[in-house]
Amino acid sequence: MSGKTRDGSPPWCIQTRELSLRTRGRDDVQDITPEVQALVRASGLRQGLATVFIPGSTASVTTMEFEPGSQTDLRAVLESLMPFGRDWAHHRTWGDDNGGSHLRSSLLGPSLTIPVMAGELVLGTWQQVVVIDHDTRPRTRRVVLQIMGSRSEPEK
Amino acid sequence: MSGKTRDGSPPWCIQTRELSLRTRGRDDVQDITPEVQALVRASGLRQGLATVFIPGSTASVTTMEFEPGSQTDLRAVLESLMPFGRDWAHHRTWGDDNGGSHLRSSLLGPSLTIPVMAGELVLGTWQQVVVIDHDTRPRTRRVVLQIMGSRSEPEK
Amino acid sequence: MSGKTRDGSPPWCIQTRELSLRTRGRDDVQDITPEVQALVRASGLRQGLATVFIPGSTASVTTMEFEPGSQTDLRAVLESLMPFGRDWAHHRTWGDDNGGSHLRSSLLGPSLTIPVMAGELVLGTWQQVVVIDHDTRPRTRRVVLQIMGSRSEPEK
Repeated sequence: MSGKTRDGSPPWCIQTRELSLRTRGRDDVQDITPEVQALVRASGLRQGLATVFIPGSTASVTTMEFEPGSQTDLRAVLESLMPFGRDWAHHRTWGDDNGGSHLRSSLLGPSLTIPVMAGELVLGTWQQVVVIDHDTRPRTRRVVLQIMGSRSEPEK
Repeated sequence: MSGKTRDGSPPWCIQTRELSLRTRGRDDVQDITPEVQALVRASGLRQGLATVFIPGSTASVTTMEFEPGSQTDLRAVLESLMPFGRDWAHHRTWGDDNGGSHLRSSLLGPSLTIPVMAGELVLGTWQQVVVIDHDTRPRTRRVVLQIMGSRSEPEK
Repeated sequence: MSGKTRDGSPPWCIQTRELSLRTRGRDDVQDITPEVQALVRASGLRQGLATVFIPGSTASVTTMEFEPGSQTDLRAVLESLMPFGRDWAHHRTWGDDNGGSHLRSSLLGPSLTIPVMAGELVLGTWQQVVVIDHDTRPRTRRVVLQIMGSRSEPEK
């Protein structure tokens, strides 16, 4: 039960999975930690990386302590820095109303890479993986999870 | 045509490539999506990760809808939060004038990791990979692309 | 000495390592570049990725030119955007005083992925890997380093 392939290298694991989310927009924060953890466990990965990525230019991925107060605070700070109602230049390009959404996405970023040890994401106890939909309307969002690494435990 | 190596593991692919960019500074935003996509395609990677990294402490990598209005908005927000002209403590360290550039780089970050599925970056339709040069003068910038994963399609 | 395994694929390398840091909180910035570089060198990785991740929801990882002035500037900007002393909604959830710490962590992010070429992190000359502890009190922090890639040099 060495977990080794015939040439002595560890058996490597690579999987790409997708989640679908319904979001309300305007900095709707959704906790996807259980879904990400379940997919990592199902993959058999023991050590490696889990990358969470959201396609689109009006959403982001980060971590936070997912409780209502922190969500309120995050929305307040983002709105103070990049108000949805400002007359953004982006609005004049397409007649859109989501210039503030685009800015939030560029600042927070669409990608998060988390190490996996002993088959588990190395998150803190009060640290959740969240998707934030900054758009100004409800959306259905695709989230991509890339899992890469080894199915065997590390050598001592 | 199973795409397998002799021991049954998928054939893995790892490549490091570099781009060179001439930038104007002061939050010059450049779309590098076509170059990154071309290098991913040339690598033969079918599933895995593409990591874009910019060496240096006055530039960043993120995604955005690359159109003139969004660039104007991004420059306006960054300048409102971290004005180039403020009397930053960094200026007194080296006699530099780019304290605001350093702050932008730390906040936005120099790294972006994007999953690859079926040989393509999983970007949204209106989502481009951009380098932002925050420095106060024109520069020639090196951008590093790390491609890692498998040359075979995922198993069903 | 081709560095190849029997099936022709490069010998791959995957390691997960941990650092322990004592921090002072309130945006204490610590340079962990020497430790990360030493672990990358010890791993034998020649090309691939080094991912630095901090578990917890009141700290972050990014890069900066690590000199006292830049640290002063970063603390000033973060405090102006998300003052520690504001009456954050998070404080009412748990009786905590670190709502501003949580916000800083979500905006800056807990993860950083750096390519490795020829056994070295591709950092700029004045670019250091830093952990920022945003919490309001001293902490002992665990930092996770995930190293993944190949022990052989790239093919030309």
